[in-house]
Amino acid sequence: MAFERYRSEIDAELRSVLAERESPLYEMMRYHLGWVDEQGHPVQGSAGKALRPTLLLLACEAVGGTWHKAVPAAVAVELVHNFSLIHDDIQDDDRERRHRPTVWSIWGKPQAINAGDALATIAGLAMLGLTQHGISAEKQLRAHRLIYEACLRMIEGQYLDISYESRFDIVVGDYLQMIERKTAALIAGSLEVGALLGSNAEAIIRGLSNFGRNLGLAFQIMDDALGIWGDERKTGKPWGSDIQRKKKSLPIVYALEKAEGKAKTELLNIYKKEVIDDQDLDAVLRILDALQAQAYAQRIAHKYLDEALEGIRGLPLAPSPRSELEEMARFVVERDF
Amino acid sequence: MAFERYRSEIDAELRSVLAERESPLYEMMRYHLGWVDEQGHPVQGSAGKALRPTLLLLACEAVGGTWHKAVPAAVAVELVHNFSLIHDDIQDDDRERRHRPTVWSIWGKPQAINAGDALATIAGLAMLGLTQHGISAEKQLRAHRLIYEACLRMIEGQYLDISYESRFDIVVGDYLQMIERKTAALIAGSLEVGALLGSNAEAIIRGLSNFGRNLGLAFQIMDDALGIWGDERKTGKPWGSDIQRKKKSLPIVYALEKAEGKAKTELLNIYKKEVIDDQDLDAVLRILDALQAQAYAQRIAHKYLDEALEGIRGLPLAPSPRSELEEMARFVVERDF
Repeated sequence: MAFERYRSEIDAELRSVLAERESPLYEMMRYHLGWVDEQGHPVQGSAGKALRPTLLLLACEAVGGTWHKAVPAAVAVELVHNFSLIHDDIQDDDRERRHRPTVWSIWGKPQAINAGDALATIAGLAMLGLTQHGISAEKQLRAHRLIYEACLRMIEGQYLDISYESRFDIVVGDYLQMIERKTAALIAGSLEVGALLGSNAEAIIRGLSNFGRNLGLAFQIMDDALGIWGDERKTGKPWGSDIQRKKKSLPIVYALEKAEGKAKTELLNIYKKEVIDDQDLDAVLRILDALQAQAYAQRIAHKYLDEALEGIRGLPLAPSPRSELEEMARFVVERDF
Repeated sequence: MAFERYRSEIDAELRSVLAERESPLYEMMRYHLGWVDEQGHPVQGSAGKALRPTLLLLACEAVGGTWHKAVPAAVAVELVHNFSLIHDDIQDDDRERRHRPTVWSIWGKPQAINAGDALATIAGLAMLGLTQHGISAEKQLRAHRLIYEACLRMIEGQYLDISYESRFDIVVGDYLQMIERKTAALIAGSLEVGALLGSNAEAIIRGLSNFGRNLGLAFQIMDDALGIWGDERKTGKPWGSDIQRKKKSLPIVYALEKAEGKAKTELLNIYKKEVIDDQDLDAVLRILDALQAQAYAQRIAHKYLDEALEGIRGLPLAPSPRSELEEMARFVVERDF
């Protein structure tokens, strides 16, 4: 699968942009990326999937480009994603990610804010590596713009996500607007930048951006479902935490919209409580089951998966990376529970 | 003075990069910049001095460039500075800045983190406005690198500043390393970018960067002194807050290094307390006075001012902006208490 094919080159470039910088700040970033433990000793990677850089490089190949040339941009989107995770953990008060203590839970929130800020800045520096790969300065500036715009949309989505926590009137349309920013924008941006670095064909670049948008929506919807019904050992998140934090994830939004009578009252009462306890959690799950919220989420995710696949059907893409893009898209939606 | 000459164009460009963006996130940024109140109603500006953009534009003029062309970069450094202030207030738990409640104290820390992140991202977008002014793509990329590097140094300095709070072994050398990053890097970067956008003469660009470094050091040292002995109405910071937060500002670092016997013990005991009360504050001020720490800080600030002025003496700069640069440098150090 494409994940493995690019992995070592992505990792090497990531390590090189963080190398030779000495402040303890960089230890925090290396810890977050899963390279070292709290004491700075190297560990065997519990790194993420590198979904965004992989999609970026696949898009570059699919349009006929040389993927090696796009590696600096792939690393930049991975760094942008990780800066957002470090800040997200602070904002959500999450003490655990990928089965490890979060950066802030070790170094405190003030320094974790710095680590995220630094990672975002290094993403910009990483982009400048495109010069060594012969990408024209004009194209680089356009790629910068795409990444800034995607990053800004992502932050807008993060704003909405937090603002929804204290609201009970969120409907599916609001939810989709939020995840389109929070998650889909950076995935769409990754595919768009990859295509841009490999091609000048505007229609294909737009088509792959749109593929990324649909894929991003499907991805976040499945993530929401896995957050409720997924295996804690696989998701790396404590079970039930999305509900306890009052996250307006799709199954909940759907239930708030669909529930009637006693179930609706019960759901609202639970969500208006200061603390959602284990008994409440069971009650919420019973309501979600009664409304078949899991099947609903899977249906919507498949709808966006289908739109993603349908959207690239007519594009003139290289056969092998096209298959890999399709395979990645299916993987995202069909990850096991 | 140069502040006024550029002001309206800087403001217009700042407003334009934040215009037509609708999320409440942008209200937070506009509030921070002093354009609107908490409810989003326009207010008469309590905006900052715009020191960094002014220096950037002066550097551009001084090397013979057209300052209008550099306005997008001037706006970018102002946004980088302001992103750092929003996050700094969160990290320091400061409820007030420029006589107004800080962003986090109104909207909460999670959303204030987003506002800072968004402002940093918009700084990158603002830079791209240089294209409309005919700056070559190659030069733009170089300007991007300078700003990213300055921003990264600034964050490293912020890391050190926070890490020093719990330490009592900080000496003047450590302090200078910290402020060189936290404050001087972005001021040096501003002058360097301004010069770069107006000239291709590497020696002059380097010379102005070095002027900025010395000026930045002098500026921070005076800021530290004003934080202790300045007029609260002018500094906009609650009096004594630097001491109560155990900031290792220059007068304190000097006192920790110079104090002997009873005074040293008293100072250390106060700094090791959980909370520094008003009586402690008086005791600290007495110790600082006995050691003539204020005169020391002014002496060191003047040393860096002299180095800054000496460093540009031999550079071939346009006479009028040269005088303004010198005037700005003196203003920074001779601000009244």
